[in-house]
Amino acid sequence: MTDAKTAFEIRLRQSAAETGALLSSLLSDTPLSDETTRPAHLMAAMRHGSLNGGKRLRPFLVRESAALLGGPADAALRVGVALECLHCYSLIHDDLPAMDDDDLRRGQPTVHKAFDEATAILAGDSLLTYAFDIIAAPETMLADRLKTELVLALARAAGPGGMAGGQALDLAAEKSPPDEAGITILQAMKTGALLRFACEAGAIIAGSEPEHRERLRLFGQKIGLAFQLADDLLDLTSDAATMGKATGKDAGRGKGTLVALHGITWAEGRLDVLTKEAIELLAPYGEKASILQETARFIASREN
Amino acid sequence: MTDAKTAFEIRLRQSAAETGALLSSLLSDTPLSDETTRPAHLMAAMRHGSLNGGKRLRPFLVRESAALLGGPADAALRVGVALECLHCYSLIHDDLPAMDDDDLRRGQPTVHKAFDEATAILAGDSLLTYAFDIIAAPETMLADRLKTELVLALARAAGPGGMAGGQALDLAAEKSPPDEAGITILQAMKTGALLRFACEAGAIIAGSEPEHRERLRLFGQKIGLAFQLADDLLDLTSDAATMGKATGKDAGRGKGTLVALHGITWAEGRLDVLTKEAIELLAPYGEKASILQETARFIASREN
Repeated sequence: MTDAKTAFEIRLRQSAAETGALLSSLLSDTPLSDETTRPAHLMAAMRHGSLNGGKRLRPFLVRESAALLGGPADAALRVGVALECLHCYSLIHDDLPAMDDDDLRRGQPTVHKAFDEATAILAGDSLLTYAFDIIAAPETMLADRLKTELVLALARAAGPGGMAGGQALDLAAEKSPPDEAGITILQAMKTGALLRFACEAGAIIAGSEPEHRERLRLFGQKIGLAFQLADDLLDLTSDAATMGKATGKDAGRGKGTLVALHGITWAEGRLDVLTKEAIELLAPYGEKASILQETARFIASREN
Repeated sequence: MTDAKTAFEIRLRQSAAETGALLSSLLSDTPLSDETTRPAHLMAAMRHGSLNGGKRLRPFLVRESAALLGGPADAALRVGVALECLHCYSLIHDDLPAMDDDDLRRGQPTVHKAFDEATAILAGDSLLTYAFDIIAAPETMLADRLKTELVLALARAAGPGGMAGGQALDLAAEKSPPDEAGITILQAMKTGALLRFACEAGAIIAGSEPEHRERLRLFGQKIGLAFQLADDLLDLTSDAATMGKATGKDAGRGKGTLVALHGITWAEGRLDVLTKEAIELLAPYGEKASILQETARFIASREN
C-alpha cells in the first residue's frame, strides 16, 4: 500500500510537471502578428495566477480518464491544460476584494495583490476565454464532433448553471444560510462541476459510448462530493500554514457546510462511503482503473 | 437616400428586437435539473446587463454577413446572440469600479450599481462562458467543423490577443500614453476584434471559401476602425445626454486617440476614406451587399 501510494504520487507529480510545462509555453508573451499582440503585463498576470505549483488534479483526471478508455494522450493533455486555465480563472476572480478578498494563495500574493484589481479581472477573463481557444485550436488533434462536445460540456460546467452559478449561490449563502439541499446543490455546482467535467472529458476525448461517459461522469460526481467534504473537514482541522491560505473563514462567515450540519464523525463516514462508491463504479474496468481509484483515495485523504 | 436609410433603420431595429427576444428567452431562470440550477439573482444580473436596448450591431453584422453568403438564418441569429453575450460581458466588466468605474450605461445603473460588485463580476463571467455554450449547443444547427471554427475565432477575438488584451493595453495607456502605432493596435484589439469577428462569422456560418472569409474579415476591420474613429469624434463633440454615459472621460484621463493626435478634420476625412474602402470591398457581391454597405455608412454617421 505504501509503495502503491508512492507510485501514484510520483505519477501525479510527473503529470503536474507536464501540465505546467505546456501551460507555461502556451502562456508565453510572444507577439501574434503586426495587428495584434498579447500584452506582456497581462500574460505575466495570467502566468502568476496559473503557474504556482498546484497539484493539477483536474488535468490529471482528464488524462487518466482518457487513458482508461484509450483516448489520445496528446489531446488529453491539451484539454487538461484548458481545464486548468478555467480553474485558475475561477481562483483569481474568487480572490478579488469584492468576492472572498484573499491576499494569499498557496503562500503567494494573489493576482490582484501582485498586480492590481483591474489586471486580475482581465487575467481571469483571459484565462477563461483562452480555455476555449486551446480546445478548438488545430493543435488539439480531435474530431470536430468531439471538440464541440467538449466545448459544450465545459461551458455548462463553468457557466451560470455550473461553477459560476455555484459561486453566486455561495455569495447568497453568506446572507441567508442554505439548508442541506441548498448546500448540496451549491457544492455540486461550485466545486463539483469541474471535477465531474474532468472525468467526463476523458470519455469524450476517447469518443466512448454514452455508457462509459455516464460512468465516468458519476465517478467525477462522487469524487467531487468527496473533495468538498475533505475540504470542509480540512478547513475545520488544519491551520493556515498547511493550507497556504486563510482557514476557518467559511465557517466564520456563516456559510453552511455539511460538516457543520452533521459533525465530523458523520462527515468522515460519508467520505469513506463516497470513496468506496467511486472505486466500485470503476470495478468493471479491472486493473486499468487502479490509478483513478487511487485518485479517489488520494482526494479523501489529502492533507492540503 | 432618405428612404434607403429608413428601410435600413427599420431592418436594424427589427433585427435588434429578434436578437433581444432570443437572448431574453435563453437567459430565463428556469431550473436545469435536480442537481443544478441557474440562480435567479445571477440570471437577473445577466439580463440587466444584456437586455438594455442596445442596437445589437454585432449580431446584425453576423446575420447580414451570413445572409450575403447564403448561410442559414437560424444559426446566424444564435451566433449573433452568443456574440452579444460576449459583448455585454465586456461592458459589465469595463464598468466595474476597478476598471472604468461607470455608474451609468445607456441611462441605466450599471450592473454593479443595480446589484453589487461580486454579482457583476459573476454575471460577466457567466455571459462570457454562456456565449460558447450557445454556439456549441445542438440547437445551433451547424456542422461541427463550423462550430469549431466559430469557437476558435471567437475565443481569439475576445481573449488576451483580442478584446481582453486591448482592454489591458487601454489600462496601461492611462499611465504611459501610446504612440500612433500603439493606439492603432489597442483599438484594433479592444473594439476592432469583435466587429471583425462579427463579419467573419457570417462567412464561417455559410461555410464559404477562404477568399470570402478574408474579404468579410477585411470589411469588418475597416468598419471597426471607422467605428472607433466615430466614437472618438462623438466623445469630443456630443454630451452625456446623447451618449447615455459620461463623455470626455477618455481624453480627460490622458488616453490617446487618433482624433486627439491628428485633429477633427483629419479624423472626418479618414472616416470617409475607411467607409468608402469598406463599401468598395463588397462591390463584387453587387446589390446583395447593399445592407452591409449601408451598415458601414450608418457606423460612420451614427450619433450615439
